[in-house]
Amino acid sequence: MALAGPRDAMVRVAILGLGSIGGSIALDLFRVHEVRGFDPDPASCAAAAAAGIPVCGTPEQALAGAELAVFCAPLGRLPALVEALAPHVDAGAIVTDVGGVKSPVVKAGRRLLPGAFVGGHPMAGSTGHGFVAARTGLFVDAPWALTPGGRDEQEAAARVRQVLAPTGARFFECDPESHDRAVAFTSHVPYLMSVAIARAARGARDEGLTEVSELVGPGFRDVTRLAMTPVQLGHDMAFENRDAVLAALAALRHQIAQAEILLQNDLESAFATWSEGAATWRAALSLPQ
Amino acid sequence: MALAGPRDAMVRVAILGLGSIGGSIALDLFRVHEVRGFDPDPASCAAAAAAGIPVCGTPEQALAGAELAVFCAPLGRLPALVEALAPHVDAGAIVTDVGGVKSPVVKAGRRLLPGAFVGGHPMAGSTGHGFVAARTGLFVDAPWALTPGGRDEQEAAARVRQVLAPTGARFFECDPESHDRAVAFTSHVPYLMSVAIARAARGARDEGLTEVSELVGPGFRDVTRLAMTPVQLGHDMAFENRDAVLAALAALRHQIAQAEILLQNDLESAFATWSEGAATWRAALSLPQ
Repeated sequence: MALAGPRDAMVRVAILGLGSIGGSIALDLFRVHEVRGFDPDPASCAAAAAAGIPVCGTPEQALAGAELAVFCAPLGRLPALVEALAPHVDAGAIVTDVGGVKSPVVKAGRRLLPGAFVGGHPMAGSTGHGFVAARTGLFVDAPWALTPGGRDEQEAAARVRQVLAPTGARFFECDPESHDRAVAFTSHVPYLMSVAIARAARGARDEGLTEVSELVGPGFRDVTRLAMTPVQLGHDMAFENRDAVLAALAALRHQIAQAEILLQNDLESAFATWSEGAATWRAALSLPQ
Repeated sequence: MALAGPRDAMVRVAILGLGSIGGSIALDLFRVHEVRGFDPDPASCAAAAAAGIPVCGTPEQALAGAELAVFCAPLGRLPALVEALAPHVDAGAIVTDVGGVKSPVVKAGRRLLPGAFVGGHPMAGSTGHGFVAARTGLFVDAPWALTPGGRDEQEAAARVRQVLAPTGARFFECDPESHDRAVAFTSHVPYLMSVAIARAARGARDEGLTEVSELVGPGFRDVTRLAMTPVQLGHDMAFENRDAVLAALAALRHQIAQAEILLQNDLESAFATWSEGAATWRAALSLPQ
């Protein structure tokens, strides 16, 4: 989409938090827009500055005059960050964030901020953290949810998409509650299952089945990668979105019970139907990379 | 390990089955050894021949004079293939296979073959099939289990490792029963969980939560990749190794129940311990790539 006029101009963007997500956004934007970054961790600030990103000494300095502010604090701290920084956000500024659970921060944003708050969730990342885990192009083809509410936020969401377009993400709008219920299935329960599989395997090893540690191929590698999610982030996903996560876990338990019944009763053709339904749907999804 | 003398010489290797696994083995070996391949599928034979691999018209021709025979039929058909071809295997030949469940084929091999049978299981592969899914280097750094039994098979296993060294795999010896119990945790249950997660997500979508199909990032991609395992292979893994799979599923169910209790009762620090135990162990594993 080619746009002409003032919307093409460079805009001032504050990025509060220069870890793997905020740092990657900054790397994608700083040659296109006037980026001002901040991070409470001096090491991430120094690394970001060394990469050419303008870094401020306080979040207030980064926010001054910004048209768009991107809050990239750890998930559990986002509502408190919105509360602390709301007085320093310009009345005309749009605020967005990158947290994996949207309802709590959207409530805080709508209540406290002077202008539009558009919840955001880029579904990419690494299991590392800090600016050292940031990289250009992290979001290419990744889904990036935006959760605008009323009319003002719809317009603000269009502006957010425009300013963040250099990330190459696939933006997708939905309401915060549907987002949270959906990511319980696509992100939070996959994380918990990844931990559960690793723990079950480790438990078998601890009981003497030492072969478990050796007989690990690419399947185990992929299925358990999310188990290396930073513990704090894993905690925040599970507890900030607890009700939706418990509902999705119950649905998963039902699927496991089905698998057990099919195996115990030698229901081979029903098993084929069971597995084929997943294979077809999964193969048709539009996924990053 | 540098070896001198006749063991360095080119040996005749029969590869029966030129799909993604057998084809990849043939690609790794055919410039080092005298490979003779066979596949019941004319398309895989033609593609293998076009890649430079000598292909025979019958399995008997491929076996004639072979010092090592690698049986690469689909998992569920391996015991029957051993039975059918045993009369055509030279008395001095070593036979190995590539099936993901070892006890049934090892029993068949020991009963029927004139010489040593060393069960084998390279833990690599793709979700594609046929020679088109084969590639050079597929096994580099991947674990490759060998399950020798008595003294003859120990020597035979050393020879198998030597002949298959060009694959670059990490060979690991264990008994067939321990192998099968371990891969229930590291391969078969991960496959079933991958199907179960995809099915649970699809079920939520079918009930109206359409966001599920959009909000899928790299985590969901990796956790559900195994759901695209060919249905027949998935079936064979689950049913050929049923008892071990059911035991591993029960261990996994126990982990899920723990997660639910921790969430329902707000046991945040116990949850951190629960997830950290998985993260540490997973991060220390030696995994391919």
